[in-house]
Amino acid sequence: MKDKAINICLVGFGNAAQEFCRMVITKNLEIKASTGYDVKVTAIAGRSKGSIINPKGINLAKALMDVESNGKFDANAEDTVNMDTIQVIENCSSNVLVELSTLSIYDGEPAISHIETAFEKGMHVITGNKGPIAWKYQKLRDNSKQRGLQFLYETTVMDGTPIFNFVKYTLPGCKVLSFKGILNSTTNFVLEEMESGNSYEDAIKEAKRRGFAEEDPSMDIDGWDAAAKTAALLNVLMDTNINPTEIDRQGIAHITLKDIEKAKEKQCKIKLLCEGYIEDNIAKGKVHPVYISNKDILSNIDATSSILGITTDLMGEVQVIEKNPEIQQTAYGIYSDLLTLIRSL
Amino acid sequence: MKDKAINICLVGFGNAAQEFCRMVITKNLEIKASTGYDVKVTAIAGRSKGSIINPKGINLAKALMDVESNGKFDANAEDTVNMDTIQVIENCSSNVLVELSTLSIYDGEPAISHIETAFEKGMHVITGNKGPIAWKYQKLRDNSKQRGLQFLYETTVMDGTPIFNFVKYTLPGCKVLSFKGILNSTTNFVLEEMESGNSYEDAIKEAKRRGFAEEDPSMDIDGWDAAAKTAALLNVLMDTNINPTEIDRQGIAHITLKDIEKAKEKQCKIKLLCEGYIEDNIAKGKVHPVYISNKDILSNIDATSSILGITTDLMGEVQVIEKNPEIQQTAYGIYSDLLTLIRSL
Repeated sequence: MKDKAINICLVGFGNAAQEFCRMVITKNLEIKASTGYDVKVTAIAGRSKGSIINPKGINLAKALMDVESNGKFDANAEDTVNMDTIQVIENCSSNVLVELSTLSIYDGEPAISHIETAFEKGMHVITGNKGPIAWKYQKLRDNSKQRGLQFLYETTVMDGTPIFNFVKYTLPGCKVLSFKGILNSTTNFVLEEMESGNSYEDAIKEAKRRGFAEEDPSMDIDGWDAAAKTAALLNVLMDTNINPTEIDRQGIAHITLKDIEKAKEKQCKIKLLCEGYIEDNIAKGKVHPVYISNKDILSNIDATSSILGITTDLMGEVQVIEKNPEIQQTAYGIYSDLLTLIRSL
Repeated sequence: MKDKAINICLVGFGNAAQEFCRMVITKNLEIKASTGYDVKVTAIAGRSKGSIINPKGINLAKALMDVESNGKFDANAEDTVNMDTIQVIENCSSNVLVELSTLSIYDGEPAISHIETAFEKGMHVITGNKGPIAWKYQKLRDNSKQRGLQFLYETTVMDGTPIFNFVKYTLPGCKVLSFKGILNSTTNFVLEEMESGNSYEDAIKEAKRRGFAEEDPSMDIDGWDAAAKTAALLNVLMDTNINPTEIDRQGIAHITLKDIEKAKEKQCKIKLLCEGYIEDNIAKGKVHPVYISNKDILSNIDATSSILGITTDLMGEVQVIEKNPEIQQTAYGIYSDLLTLIRSL
C-alpha cells in the first residue's frame, strides 16, 4: 500500500454512493488532519452511468454533476474507460474496494465476485451490499484474514447504525445467544399505513410514492430483504453459514385489514419480525408477521425506523434503534467503515 | 507493569463488586487463554467489611463466603490489613484500580481521591462510580492521559450497556449534538406504579420492597441520580466541565395521581427525562418530568429499563435500550472495561 493513501474503487453509483462521495469531499481534509491519510476515489464502476479510472483522484464534484445533469459520466472525459466492473477492479490500482452495486438477493452476485477479485488484488473491502454477507460471509471473512486484509460491512443491516461493531467493540467477552428485530422499512411502513385504516393496495401505493418501496415491491413484501438481513446477522453474530433461502420466511402479502383489526382488539400491532436463535444446538432464522403488544417497545417502531435486540450470555438484552433514516445514514455506514479501516492500518 | 499480569485493587465490596469477583473467578482461564493476561484481585478495600492485601492473589471464593456468612472479611486471616482505603491503594502494588465505593453524589468524593491516588501510583483505573465522571471528568481524563494510563467508566451510565464505548468505537467521526433518555430506574418504576393506580406513597413502598429504592429514596426521587448521569454524559460525550448541581433539575415528588390521569387523557405517560443539548453555544443539561406520547418509544420503557437517544451530526438519532437489568449487568460493565483495558495494553 502506498504510504498513507486510501485510493478507493467505488462499485455502483446510486444514491448512497453519491452521498458517500459528498462526504468524502466534505471530510477529506478533516481525515487527513486527524489520521494523516489522504482519501481519494480513484475508480468508479457504474452499471448504466459508465466507468472512470484516475489514479490521481477522480474529480468527484464533476462526476456528481455529470450524473445529476445527464444521468451518466462524461463519455468524452479523459479518464472515462470502457470496461466492465471486474476489469475496473483489476485495473484501477486502488487499495480499497467500496462495493455498492445493486443487491441480488437470490445469490449475492455479482457483488461476491467483485469482492473476491478485490481480495486477489490485495485490496481491503467495505461493502454496503448485504448479498455477500448473507450468502458467503465465512468464506469471504476467511479469505480476507488469510491475506491480512480488512473486510467491513456495517451498513448492510440498519444502515450506519452500529450493529456489527456494537457487538465486536462494545460487548467484549459476550456470546450472542439470540436476536430479534424489525429490519425492513417497507413492510413496517405498509403495516403502519394499514394500521391507520388504508388498504394494503393503497399502502403499497403510498410507500412507492414516498420512495420506501421499489416499483416491484415483492423483495420487501415477501420478506426476502428481511431474510437476507437475518442471514447476515446469523452469519456474523452467531458464526453460522446460512443463506437467505434457509431462513423460515413469511411475508405480509396475505395480511388483511381484518387481521390488523383483530390485532387491535387484543391491544396489539402486527409487525414483521426477524429472529435468530438456537434450537437443538443449531442457529436458525425466522422472518414472520407477529402480534406485538402495544406495551412492547417494538410496537412503537414507526415508519422507516428499525430496531434490533441482542441477547447475550453476560449482558442480557440490549436493543439498538435507528430513527427514520435518510440516505445520509447509509452513506455514513460506509464512511464509518472507512474510518474503522484507517484506525486498523 | 509486571508482564501480562492484571493485579486489581478493588475499592468497595457491595453487590456489584461481589458479582464482578464471581465473574473473575469464572472467566479467569478464558481471559488467560485468549489474551495471555493473568487476572488477579490482589487487594480489596472495604468500608465496613475490612481490607485485604495479598500480592499473590486474594482467595476470592473465601472472601465472598466470609462476607456472605459474617458480613465482613475474616479478621484473623494472614492477608487482612488494618488500613484505610487510601493506604490500601498506596500499599497494594496492584496495577489496576477498580473503584466501586459508595457514591457521594454531592461532591464525587472519596472516589475522586481514590482515583487520583491510583494515578499517582501508576495504576490504570476502572470506575463504576459515576461521582468522579459527574464532578471531575476533564481533570481525571487529562491526568490519566499525561501519565499514559487508561481511565474507563462504561458502567457509570446504564450499567454495562455500551454508551461511552458506543460513541467512541462505533460512531467514528460523529459529533454528539444532543442526547435524551430515561436513566433513573427508581423514578421510572414509581411512575409506572402510579400509572397502574397506586398512590405515590405505595409506589415508593413497593420500590423499596423490590430493592429498586434506597431507604432514603430522595437521591433518586429528587432527580440527583439522573442529574449526575446527565452531567457524566455531557462531560464525556459533549466535552463539558459541568457538575450535577449545574443541571436544571426537577424531581417527581410533586407528581400526583391527578397529574398521571391528566397525562392519560392526552394519550401520554409522565417520564423523568434527562437531556443534554446546546443552547447559545453552551452545552446544558436538564432533568424533568415530561409528558411522553404513548406513540413514542420512550413511553414503553418499563420498570427498571432505561434508554438513551444520541443525536449526531452525521448519523442522526440512534437509541440504545437496556432491558430490566440485574446486578450481573453492572458487574459486566466493569468486566467489559477490564477486557477493553487488556485490549489496549
